[in-house]
Amino acid sequence: MGSEFKNGGYEMTETGTELAVAKRREMRGWDLVLRVAAVAFSLAAAVVLGVNKQTTTVALTLVQTLPPVDVPVTAKWHYLSASVYFVVANSTACAYAAISLLLLSVNRGGKKRVAMMIVIFDLMIIALLFSSLGAVLAVGLIGLKGNSHIQWHEVCSVFGKFCNQGATAIGLSGVASLVFLVLVLIAILKLHKKR
Amino acid sequence: MGSEFKNGGYEMTETGTELAVAKRREMRGWDLVLRVAAVAFSLAAAVVLGVNKQTTTVALTLVQTLPPVDVPVTAKWHYLSASVYFVVANSTACAYAAISLLLLSVNRGGKKRVAMMIVIFDLMIIALLFSSLGAVLAVGLIGLKGNSHIQWHEVCSVFGKFCNQGATAIGLSGVASLVFLVLVLIAILKLHKKR
Repeated sequence: MGSEFKNGGYEMTETGTELAVAKRREMRGWDLVLRVAAVAFSLAAAVVLGVNKQTTTVALTLVQTLPPVDVPVTAKWHYLSASVYFVVANSTACAYAAISLLLLSVNRGGKKRVAMMIVIFDLMIIALLFSSLGAVLAVGLIGLKGNSHIQWHEVCSVFGKFCNQGATAIGLSGVASLVFLVLVLIAILKLHKKR
Repeated sequence: MGSEFKNGGYEMTETGTELAVAKRREMRGWDLVLRVAAVAFSLAAAVVLGVNKQTTTVALTLVQTLPPVDVPVTAKWHYLSASVYFVVANSTACAYAAISLLLLSVNRGGKKRVAMMIVIFDLMIIALLFSSLGAVLAVGLIGLKGNSHIQWHEVCSVFGKFCNQGATAIGLSGVASLVFLVLVLIAILKLHKKR
């Protein structure tokens, strides 16, 4: 009886270990998939805003007695500091996500120090991406609606394509930011379970 | 000899446990101090921007042949969506920091679930605060420098006090954001050490 019980206990422990290993592998798989998504979305956001440019014409009345003249006007992404910051932030996030992917692939043994450094850097990238999201959203909103109090006129009715492309970049970066948030959440949950 | 060794080993373990408990208490102390700082700085940031208002006069030339007329103009914090978001974000962070402080004081036993929920909410607050920081910094920069490409004129030469008060609020919120970042970093380091 005693031996049977012992055996049963041993089997249960082995099954438990196997389950834990399988679960760890599954979580590791999710971590890698999410990092690939982070690379893709932050790269797409940086490129979509980084190539954003639109030239259009506006009718300008130079002399009251003459008909308005069509003047070419151009909007470029680097005209706004917020867009420059956004492109730099998303490029940094993309490069970091790729590096962390490589590090995790090399770190198959699951070295504690490497894993910890990655979580800490993930956290820094969250701060970077969310601040850049806030920056372009705030400026984009003024571009869309204008602000009558300080005479900042809306520009999206003239530069429609430029604004739409900016909105797409914001959406893509939003997904990348959420992916990094989920990565840190998973790391915290994993660490709590191991306590 | 064997007993002595055993005794020595027991003593070492007890000292180790005492050290661990002392270290945990010290870390807990830091956590509480940082949360009090988070309450203070986010509250100060929300109040400093939330009461921001300046009325001044600008010389306006209505008719070319007549001398310019002094017209009163007012800048209020809620004229800009970014400022409204900033005040809401910092108020939320302040209220949350106060609640987490209460929860940690009640949770003296150190329940795993409560501690985990607090780290997760800390993370959400980081995203919220950094996005609001990005928003006011981007709009504040245009207010300070203007943007010649889209004819958004700088306003800080007229509303100097308003802009300075905004900069103070940004600084205060910056400290609050860093405090939350440090809180999550400490939690991650603590969890890694316990593994």
